[in-house]
This record gives sequence, C-alpha cells and structure tokens, in this order.
Amino acid sequence: MKRIVLGVQYNGSPWSGWQTQPSGNTVQDVLERALASFAKAPIATTCAGRTDAGVHALEQIVHFDTELDRAAYSWVNGVNAFLPASIAVQWATEVPHEVREDELHDSQADFHARFSAYARTYHYVVHNSAVRSPIWAERAGWVFRPLDVDRMRAAAVHLIGEQDFTVFRAASCQAKTPVKHMYEVQIRQQGDLIVFTLRASAFLHHMVRNIVGSLIFVGTGRREPPWIAELLESRDRSLSAPTFMPDGLYLARIDYDKKWALPQIDQGHFPGFLGIALP
Amino acid sequence: MKRIVLGVQYNGSPWSGWQTQPSGNTVQDVLERALASFAKAPIATTCAGRTDAGVHALEQIVHFDTELDRAAYSWVNGVNAFLPASIAVQWATEVPHEVREDELHDSQADFHARFSAYARTYHYVVHNSAVRSPIWAERAGWVFRPLDVDRMRAAAVHLIGEQDFTVFRAASCQAKTPVKHMYEVQIRQQGDLIVFTLRASAFLHHMVRNIVGSLIFVGTGRREPPWIAELLESRDRSLSAPTFMPDGLYLARIDYDKKWALPQIDQGHFPGFLGIALP
Repeated sequence: MKRIVLGVQYNGSPWSGWQTQPSGNTVQDVLERALASFAKAPIATTCAGRTDAGVHALEQIVHFDTELDRAAYSWVNGVNAFLPASIAVQWATEVPHEVREDELHDSQADFHARFSAYARTYHYVVHNSAVRSPIWAERAGWVFRPLDVDRMRAAAVHLIGEQDFTVFRAASCQAKTPVKHMYEVQIRQQGDLIVFTLRASAFLHHMVRNIVGSLIFVGTGRREPPWIAELLESRDRSLSAPTFMPDGLYLARIDYDKKWALPQIDQGHFPGFLGIALP
Repeated sequence: MKRIVLGVQYNGSPWSGWQTQPSGNTVQDVLERALASFAKAPIATTCAGRTDAGVHALEQIVHFDTELDRAAYSWVNGVNAFLPASIAVQWATEVPHEVREDELHDSQADFHARFSAYARTYHYVVHNSAVRSPIWAERAGWVFRPLDVDRMRAAAVHLIGEQDFTVFRAASCQAKTPVKHMYEVQIRQQGDLIVFTLRASAFLHHMVRNIVGSLIFVGTGRREPPWIAELLESRDRSLSAPTFMPDGLYLARIDYDKKWALPQIDQGHFPGFLGIALP
C-alpha cells in the first residue's frame, strides 16, 4: 500500500465546501469520484483543512492510500482529466507509510495531511470600493466603506500569540481546544485590494472570517483597535462581528516538516498569489 | 431627452457576449432589463465595443437616451440593484445631446459610445504553467508550454502602425475596412502570468484573440518572430493561428475626447487591473 499526497487547488464558489455530503456537491466528493475513475477503484481522501462552502484553496493538501503504482505526473494529469475547471491537482508525491496492526497514527513515521501539519496560512482578499466589482465577485469580499489599514494593523497586533480564540469560534466548531497560536497577521494594500494574511498553528471553524469581520469594524471606524483585545478577553461569541462572507477566503499554505519533501508551491507569500504583487 | 453614459464592468463567462440575442442571455439583454426595471420604461443601449461570449469588460462604455431625471449615483445604485453579481455599473454621467430632425450623428455636438471613441485598449491575460489553475479558469487563457516573452515582444513589433489586419480578421467580421492603426502592444510578465495589452484605433472581430494566438506560436518556438510580418503581408486568414480562447480577454478602456469629461477609471494601465502590479 502506497500513501500519495496531492496539492489541490480549487475555486470554492460552485461547491458546498470540502467535506463529503449526501448531495455529492463538495470538493471531496468530486475529487474522490475523479480518483476512482482514474484508479478504477474507490479511494478515500483525508485533507489538511476542511474549507466551508464558497471558500477557495490555493494549495489544499490531501492524502490517500492506494495499491496503484503510477508516476507523479500521471496522478496529476490523469486525475485532472476527470476534474472540472474549478478543481485541479497541482502536484503529487509519494510519502513513507507503514501499515500497522494497531492503526495508530505515528506522527514520526507516517505522513498525515492533517496531523502532520504544524501551521496553516489563509489569505482573505477584500475589494474596498464604493461600487461592487463583477471581476472580484466570488473572489474577494466587498466592503464599500473606506477601510483604514493602519487602524486594522493596530488592532491585529492583539491577535498575535497563544490565546483562547473562543470569541471567534463558530457554534458548530468541533476543535478540542479554543487555544491556538497565532504566528502572524499581515494586512497589505494594493490599489483597492486589501489582503489579510493569517498564519496560526490551527484555526477554529469560521475563525478567519470572524476575525476579518471584526477587523473591518475597526477599519471603518465603528470600533477602536483595542476592541480586539476586549473581544479575546470576553470569550463571548455574541460580541464579535458577524461572520464575513466566504468569497475572499483562500486556504493558502499548510506547513509540514521538511523531511516529507513535499513539492509545495509557496502560496503563503507574495507575489504570485492571484498575480497580486504587494509591498 | 437626456443622454446618459455608463461605465459597465462585467465577467463575461456566464454570458453569450454583449449583443442582444433571442435567448436573452447576453450582457446587453440583462442590462436593458435592469434599466427598464429601474426606469419603468424600455431603454435601448449602444455600447463602444461588442464583446464575444466569455469575454470580460473592465469598463465597457454604454449610452442611452431617457426622459428620466435621476442623479448619477442613483443610476449606479438603482440599476445595480437589478443586476447579477457578474455585471455592475461603475459610474454614470450625462453628456450633451441634441435631438435633430435628420437623426444624423454629429460627432462634434453629440456623444456616441461607439462613434465618439478614437481608441480601444484590450488586455489578454495568459496563465503560463504546466498545470491548469482553477483560480484562473475563465479569467485567463492557459498555455502549458513555456512562453518566451522576449521572442513575443520581437514579434509584436511588426503589429505597430497603420496596417491591413485581414489575416487576423474573423470571417464574420462586419467592419467596413480591415485597415486599423495599432498604437501599442505591450507584453508584461508577473510570475506565471503574462499580460498582453493592445491599443488600436479599432479592432476587427476576433482580432485580439487571433493576434495573441499567433504570438503564442512564436512564444513556444513553433514560429519565428518575423512570421507575424509575413502573416500581415499575406492577408490570408488560413495562415494565422487558431482564435485563442476568450477566457483571458478584457475590454479595458475606450478613449474619448476629454471634452466629454467622462469619469473613466484608467483600466488601460497597471497596477490596478486584477490587482496585478507589473514591471
């Protein structure tokens, strides 16, 4: 049995999120159907970060086990032939995998898309303009009130470090703990685009969209920068801003130990992402 | 009777081009239905450049005549409320318009979206990568063979000036003359994106897509740069490359005399367009 890892990019707009559903209209459903068509056998996948409906991925990491022996380029081109324009495998590679009787995960010996990951990076793209843009529809969130980037940066400082992010957690969140380590929050502007880049050990359900929604409250002047610290302290979900629209959210990069030698494309830094070259 | 001019942006992917069709599935059909809903009266529009199915517009220019008296922002917000996410009015303004008995167009006294225009700018965005990108699907053409930008620039030089562009003309083209003046062809690269910017007095049907397709033949090494000069000389449509896909084509800017004082957004230059900052 081989363990294969894929880098998968998708436009989440037409899909009901990553995770399989009875409707079959999810990225996982479509990818597993394509894998089954290529491998002529059912294949079950595991991803690094389950994305919600309408959320995109520049490089989702997916693993699966198979008896099939194919070259990496063959997995890429062969599976892509069965995928729609909105989903495509970017690369494939084989990783060490030992099948053991107890089926326990050994994070030292086995690669696992989710358990081996030590950090995640998301981008949120906001189109800040008085009039909505059809070019950015489903690719960016839209804020028509002018945003003050310096105010949002001052607010974002409070997010850094190991903290209890309960206030930014969805009621549906199944994480064992609300304590996560936020390594970095960058806010960059290019013309009428503002890109929020968040890197953390892991994210709670809706955490990025709730944080961005709250930073926007600061950016428009509706709240002051220290409000973010007050929110974190409160641990009261009813106090934060509403969950911001999924359109501008991109799962950008998952970090793993270099020993796995994944051929990842660096989607965590600019330029490159969406062609945006930011200062 | 007032003459109103609109700057209209659209994602052409879901639409069967600009021009009205019995199917009703065109940008003009949808825009005229929205205008009629807002004005509570039928409104007939004229655009600067009819785009094909799947082709986008950053700033299409549209004019129409109406008895309705509304502020500019009211035309923008009011009409946008009736438009889908893929189409939006960016601005509106009133221009001088004299109704005369003979109905002849007087280009000095009357603004006309098409006849008053003296130059057009299109961008063509190519995603040059071994693997297709779902993020750029329907937003960029895809070329998987590596493109040599210097070779394409050397080829593009032959396009400049007043020339007979018959070789790049679609059989369906209804223009009176194939002679157009090409003012500028810029080819710029940012990561795996290549943006072709063409500015001319006017374009024949399929002209940009036929030119880009032929430049790509040079960029991949299939033809040499002087081939473009040979094509122009031949005036034989069967010799040029096939019409390239519409996905990456954007009508960017229409140039008019400053006396009309249109509140145009400069879509002809970077940065700004799609967030791409090019050298």
